[in-house]
Amino acid sequence: MALIVQKYGGTSVGSVERIKNVANKVAKFVDEGHQVVVAVSAMSGETNRLMALAKEMQDEPSRRELDVLLTTGEQVTIALLSMALQQKGYDAISYTGWQVPIHTNNVHFKARIEDIDADKMMAQLNQGKVVVVAGFQGVTPEGDITTLGRGGSDTTAVALAAALKADECQIYTDVDGVYTTDPRVVPEAKRLDVITYDEMLELASLGAKVLQIRSVEFASKYKVPLRVLSSLQDGGGTLLISEEDFEGLGMEKPLISGIAFSRDEAKLMILGVPDKPGVAYKILGPISDANIEIDMIIQNQGIDGTTDFTFTVARNDLNMAKDIIKKIASELGARETLCDDTIVKISMVGVGMKSHSGIASTMFKTLADNNINIQMIGTTEIKISVVIDEQYLETAVKALHQAFELDK
Amino acid sequence: MALIVQKYGGTSVGSVERIKNVANKVAKFVDEGHQVVVAVSAMSGETNRLMALAKEMQDEPSRRELDVLLTTGEQVTIALLSMALQQKGYDAISYTGWQVPIHTNNVHFKARIEDIDADKMMAQLNQGKVVVVAGFQGVTPEGDITTLGRGGSDTTAVALAAALKADECQIYTDVDGVYTTDPRVVPEAKRLDVITYDEMLELASLGAKVLQIRSVEFASKYKVPLRVLSSLQDGGGTLLISEEDFEGLGMEKPLISGIAFSRDEAKLMILGVPDKPGVAYKILGPISDANIEIDMIIQNQGIDGTTDFTFTVARNDLNMAKDIIKKIASELGARETLCDDTIVKISMVGVGMKSHSGIASTMFKTLADNNINIQMIGTTEIKISVVIDEQYLETAVKALHQAFELDK
Repeated sequence: MALIVQKYGGTSVGSVERIKNVANKVAKFVDEGHQVVVAVSAMSGETNRLMALAKEMQDEPSRRELDVLLTTGEQVTIALLSMALQQKGYDAISYTGWQVPIHTNNVHFKARIEDIDADKMMAQLNQGKVVVVAGFQGVTPEGDITTLGRGGSDTTAVALAAALKADECQIYTDVDGVYTTDPRVVPEAKRLDVITYDEMLELASLGAKVLQIRSVEFASKYKVPLRVLSSLQDGGGTLLISEEDFEGLGMEKPLISGIAFSRDEAKLMILGVPDKPGVAYKILGPISDANIEIDMIIQNQGIDGTTDFTFTVARNDLNMAKDIIKKIASELGARETLCDDTIVKISMVGVGMKSHSGIASTMFKTLADNNINIQMIGTTEIKISVVIDEQYLETAVKALHQAFELDK
Repeated sequence: MALIVQKYGGTSVGSVERIKNVANKVAKFVDEGHQVVVAVSAMSGETNRLMALAKEMQDEPSRRELDVLLTTGEQVTIALLSMALQQKGYDAISYTGWQVPIHTNNVHFKARIEDIDADKMMAQLNQGKVVVVAGFQGVTPEGDITTLGRGGSDTTAVALAAALKADECQIYTDVDGVYTTDPRVVPEAKRLDVITYDEMLELASLGAKVLQIRSVEFASKYKVPLRVLSSLQDGGGTLLISEEDFEGLGMEKPLISGIAFSRDEAKLMILGVPDKPGVAYKILGPISDANIEIDMIIQNQGIDGTTDFTFTVARNDLNMAKDIIKKIASELGARETLCDDTIVKISMVGVGMKSHSGIASTMFKTLADNNINIQMIGTTEIKISVVIDEQYLETAVKALHQAFELDK
């Protein structure tokens, strides 16, 4: 007997029939002798419908009231799923965020979970009930309703699993796991059976948007075994665990787990800046102040006492960043500014990198063999990223996938 | 400056535009310097939509889960109305039932309010805010969500007014007050400016369904001045107060306040029952056990050692009651049973009756003058009811309305 937390998203509970399907899935686990806690999202479309109503009421809807409004979405789902389970003869009880309670801070619309009281849920589980919890929501110390922000239901599920010391947290989604790369680009891409939290964080933040980053961070922090799997088809999905647990499995660590890429990139260059202390801050400070997130940064010292800065931002932010940079360039007496939104970023991720050399050189050679010029390079312990011209994206990803034998 | 509790029903908040209209109405009172607490229902149609979803899930939906489901309706409204007020520049804050909190017992789907904590609301009012509260809902000591049953939002408003010691509780509805009788039957019917709680209770229970009975009982118990008025047109509506406060107004008490009538009546007779102690219970006990509500009861002792019973029930219940009565009649050796669903009940209500004689005789004479036969008579301190053939309903009500000069 295991204690399992399952999470079903909006599409999985998007209609009466689909909620009944979820009840069937849950029932299967109960029949196998497991204790099950289910976290659910609002029925697909509901959050958008409510948001549209809010916008008709107030130009910029109050975030406190928006949280009151939006949390009704999951509240509807928990009641309906509990009814569906009861109809099948399974005892079930629903809890909203405040009923659990799921304590959060008071940042409306993107609150953070601070603590979850597992006592009520455990008492119900021990009475043989399925506990159905509203995802995405919580309650402040003052008793105000909060929401966790985008993808918050994943975070709820992982946090519940941590609080309950669950054996596994299962996130049901519309894909059947995490792949070595996007199968739409490389049809030979393979589903990974196991991946570490850290690898997933690098892959997720780079565009393989299967799981909400925060939920993976949460799982990593509390060492919650996290499984991503399909709500539509059977299969073991992909299990996310810690590096230590990975080693415990006795499996050989692959050099590379996956290749992520992002088309949402733009590059800015500011050339010929007088090379003085504090110049990086003078350039990048105003960008941050404008709430523009900077991804890769390169600084190249010239020989004439000047320096060149290159950095990337999301394509959406390019125009705003360009305006800021032009102003700074003239203040600093820089030679010129350039920008380019026809670039992409490709990243190879793998914990095996830590103990194996030669991965970077294989990567660069593969790209060179395909006549692909590298514009920027960035690395972390378990990742190598390159920026290239967007026209070579598919060629590069396919070549790298093959070079590292990810299809084997 | 007064503290006013207002209640708007489902039709009044049935669309984005209507919610904005409610915001305008509330704003007018705030502009006049009043403190306002608003109780609202779910947008019209929403409760039915949710109920239909529930029935698709479970043949007989769990009442606990139904309460979780249905309370989302008012939660949506409070958020939207608060946003609409904020958009107009009025500070507003929403509270669900559990946030106030409105404490109830744990009878799901028809809970009773046990206590309301006014502290949070008062604190917000004193900060100049409009407090928007979800009607129809509360929370049990165990933290479960409850609903108050049909018309519960009226009860919420009155209970809030009692807890806040409000100066007035205003129930906005689709009629502009309480009338001397149904204007569809008597076009000369007049709106009453003032009426006592007790009169309203008699009128309401007899078919003049303007206000939920429970809310009037609540208002009576806590002496909350309760005003019924139209959400669509201006006007003072009808004020409900206690008899003592009525006297305090220095107005002459009218003999008759109004004439109520009900077409939803059916009569059952069981004739020639051996007249022994306990026979009434033997007949009426099984009727009550079948959850059939008995309205008027008459017992007539015969001269041959037998007795006749006549009683009325709602027309819907006639068939079920008839079957029960036939069985009892044969057990008791009664002579025969009869039933009639072509009857109506007409009731004259007025606190003035207590101190004036002659009202009954005027009533009977008026009916006699119109050749209308009286089948049953029942009285309370402030009410005389008669049962007549349904074909004479309009004639009788018009004649009585005129005889007691209710159009003056």
